[in-house]
Amino acid sequence: MLTNDQLAKWDRESFFHPSTHLGQFARGEAAQRIVTGGEGVFITDRDGNRLLDGFAGLYCVNVGYGRAEIAEAIATQARELSYYHSYAGHGSEASITLSKMVMDRAPEGMARVYFGLGGSDANETNIKLVWYYNNILGRPEKKKIISRWRGYHGSGLMTGSLTGLDLFHRKFDLPLSQVIHTEAPYHFRHPDPTMSEADFTAHCVAKLEELIAAEGADTIAAFIGEPVLGTGGIVPPPAGYWPAIKAVLDRHDILLILDEVVTGFGRLGSMFGAGHYGVQPDLITCAKGLTSAYAPLSASIVGQRMWDVLMQGTDENGVLGHGWTYSAHPIGAAAGIANLKLIDDLGLVENAGTVGRYLNETMRAAVGDHVHVGEVRGEGMLCAVELVADRDKRSFFDAAEGKGAKVVAAMLKRGVIARAMPQGDILGFAPPLCLTQAEADQIVAVTKDSIAEVLG
Amino acid sequence: MLTNDQLAKWDRESFFHPSTHLGQFARGEAAQRIVTGGEGVFITDRDGNRLLDGFAGLYCVNVGYGRAEIAEAIATQARELSYYHSYAGHGSEASITLSKMVMDRAPEGMARVYFGLGGSDANETNIKLVWYYNNILGRPEKKKIISRWRGYHGSGLMTGSLTGLDLFHRKFDLPLSQVIHTEAPYHFRHPDPTMSEADFTAHCVAKLEELIAAEGADTIAAFIGEPVLGTGGIVPPPAGYWPAIKAVLDRHDILLILDEVVTGFGRLGSMFGAGHYGVQPDLITCAKGLTSAYAPLSASIVGQRMWDVLMQGTDENGVLGHGWTYSAHPIGAAAGIANLKLIDDLGLVENAGTVGRYLNETMRAAVGDHVHVGEVRGEGMLCAVELVADRDKRSFFDAAEGKGAKVVAAMLKRGVIARAMPQGDILGFAPPLCLTQAEADQIVAVTKDSIAEVLG
Ligand SMILES: Cc1ncc(COP(=O)(O)O)c(C=O)c1O
Ligand SMILES: Cc1ncc(COP(=O)(O)O)c(C=O)c1O
Repeated sequence: MLTNDQLAKWDRESFFHPSTHLGQFARGEAAQRIVTGGEGVFITDRDGNRLLDGFAGLYCVNVGYGRAEIAEAIATQARELSYYHSYAGHGSEASITLSKMVMDRAPEGMARVYFGLGGSDANETNIKLVWYYNNILGRPEKKKIISRWRGYHGSGLMTGSLTGLDLFHRKFDLPLSQVIHTEAPYHFRHPDPTMSEADFTAHCVAKLEELIAAEGADTIAAFIGEPVLGTGGIVPPPAGYWPAIKAVLDRHDILLILDEVVTGFGRLGSMFGAGHYGVQPDLITCAKGLTSAYAPLSASIVGQRMWDVLMQGTDENGVLGHGWTYSAHPIGAAAGIANLKLIDDLGLVENAGTVGRYLNETMRAAVGDHVHVGEVRGEGMLCAVELVADRDKRSFFDAAEGKGAKVVAAMLKRGVIARAMPQGDILGFAPPLCLTQAEADQIVAVTKDSIAEVLG
Repeated sequence: MLTNDQLAKWDRESFFHPSTHLGQFARGEAAQRIVTGGEGVFITDRDGNRLLDGFAGLYCVNVGYGRAEIAEAIATQARELSYYHSYAGHGSEASITLSKMVMDRAPEGMARVYFGLGGSDANETNIKLVWYYNNILGRPEKKKIISRWRGYHGSGLMTGSLTGLDLFHRKFDLPLSQVIHTEAPYHFRHPDPTMSEADFTAHCVAKLEELIAAEGADTIAAFIGEPVLGTGGIVPPPAGYWPAIKAVLDRHDILLILDEVVTGFGRLGSMFGAGHYGVQPDLITCAKGLTSAYAPLSASIVGQRMWDVLMQGTDENGVLGHGWTYSAHPIGAAAGIANLKLIDDLGLVENAGTVGRYLNETMRAAVGDHVHVGEVRGEGMLCAVELVADRDKRSFFDAAEGKGAKVVAAMLKRGVIARAMPQGDILGFAPPLCLTQAEADQIVAVTKDSIAEVLG
């Protein structure tokens, strides 16, 4: 066993961490945590801490930590066949079985599933397929992608462009020119606080119509959105949003990509956000919930009208020139099968709905009236507490004060992990879907105490 | 146990395979293979076939199939901690240990390692870092990336643009405008057959200089290349190529990205192509050989001069807005540790050199004089046989005849997997690094018989 000190030193000297302050980390000024294990909603680290993970890793460990069923499925697959590729009609029993299980759970009208590694590459695949689709249909100009401000769709060059958050654009020359953004469906942050949800939906629709008119519908290929805005602030859409948006897209022959990386496989208390909000997508992006992060795997679920054109495309042009070496990796597929079974067996979709509602209600009751809490919102096992400088004026703290991060730090001292969302002072909660009411109570109590400590 | 028929049906109906003819596969016209296991250089499928895998999956199963050491490392990690994220200074014992092991093996002058999932996302990370670097240095115009025709760097929008192969551009609107291509260092396909290797290197250098002059060095950020062209035809560079190219890049302050996804960790008979060809990169891309594909993991190894600027960047701008949820996934890290140990313990870098040389020599002796073989070439455990219509005129078959694919199909009937490279009639060989001389003999014998069957 390696000592903590040795590991700590290697970490500072060798390891380039994602989304980290590189200078501070290298100089030992930023925190370091070496995680060693977990069980249920708890993780443990090498310093002996046991923490309630109120964000399920990065909203991905949906079934919770330490599930022997998935670990054993991975172990068995590793012994049998760790890897063979899936190019040119090759597959493994695991990858084929999972493809069937995904299609059985997918909304009506979906035709095939492509497996990748993570959410970003699945969205990358989706954009490639959308462009290919319009080339096959002889519409080479119809290529722009509309995303929303505050959307999160990944961290690559294209996917970071789809993402509508400053941190992921600044200094990276993003967004690329092929991506345009429309208004975030974020009622609480709209300047006019008297606007009803229905009016705000109409406003979002009008903004989208404006953008399409300005750009020309014949230049726009697809619209991408998360059913519930995630990293942008955990914001459920205003009433009626998705059907209203979908009607606009249909009118202009624009494809809909639903990014269900966070919401897919149960987080909203429904199998997919598509069904939850009654909207029919052309492509669904999945990752996190597909394997509960036990092994990397993503999925692009392709709807029938796209699939027909993709087949026509290969009939006309031969093999589709797209693939990752690790597409449909057997270890990921084995983890996915065990994970989806566990979600069924433990009734986690239902639990996400019931305990998620309980979490949101108790959170609202506990902190909703605090003078520096502007809104408590959520859907299923997602919850956010948005901090404000002034409740009545709905004004925000200066970002430099880092109020959200300070509350999250105060919570950590009390043994609960929440996430300070990157844009705004927003406390994010996305616990494993197996959360119990008692654990929800613990999250809420710690949130309340920590807000009191930092904000009075 | 599922019957083959049921699986076969699910496969046709649900599974969107990469790099596949979608129409033919869905209609049951294209081949299907369900792989069930493997040992050493052999794989087995559900129809009872046992095949010598002369391409190591997609040149990635470097240690060979069925290695219990790696399977057990994966199993142990899955039981202990399948996942926690590595954002904001978090890590696991496995990911930190692997970062140290990678840096210990990396060429001099490298500073840190960023872990992703596959080769494409590692190159995506690299391009993001290159752009960020020049923004921090206040050179916002210095952003174009030079790649080579016939390079392969992935299948995303940016990485597919870096790739210089028609199949990956056509119908996808690639390459993106930020990527420009220069001549492939492919001596055999150069129109003037009398040109010496040294003269051809000078020619490639002149072409590069021309391109830089035409575009303006102050618009060019980086040059990316595989030490040995892989998917573009398995082509070792002409003598003196890398030092000569590097001198040009240095003169124009252009960064060098060496894409060692295929060559990293031993395939050339050296730990890295950088050392093999005596060239100092700013970034090294790794994937396949890092874990031998037992679990998805990639690495971007960052050189000191870039790292210093990246640290400056976060000191000036805060957290770096880049990360994948599955960056440094513990399962991949555990596989990587066991894999790198095994490579050392079994002396596979050395074996790649010695048996690789033997494979190339026996291949050349067996088929090099065939009237339809233009060249047998290779380096380390990489070998290619390039088919020609006419040896003396060095003319090629019509692509529509699919001669390469036919030879590969004839080999498969004889129990050996080779790869028909996508552009040209080129038989590609990249067996596991543990290949024995007897197994090399089998590959060569089958190649010879199959060429005779198809081409007389
Ligand atoms: C909605 C959504 N899409 C895509 C991604 C990108 O996934 P990954 O980090 O696995 O690339 C994320 C990650 O948080 C996400 O939340
Ligand atoms: C040199 C090189 N770079 C990058 C890649 C892309 O890697 P992946 O398929 O894992 O995305 C490959 C894959 O074959 C490769 O050969």
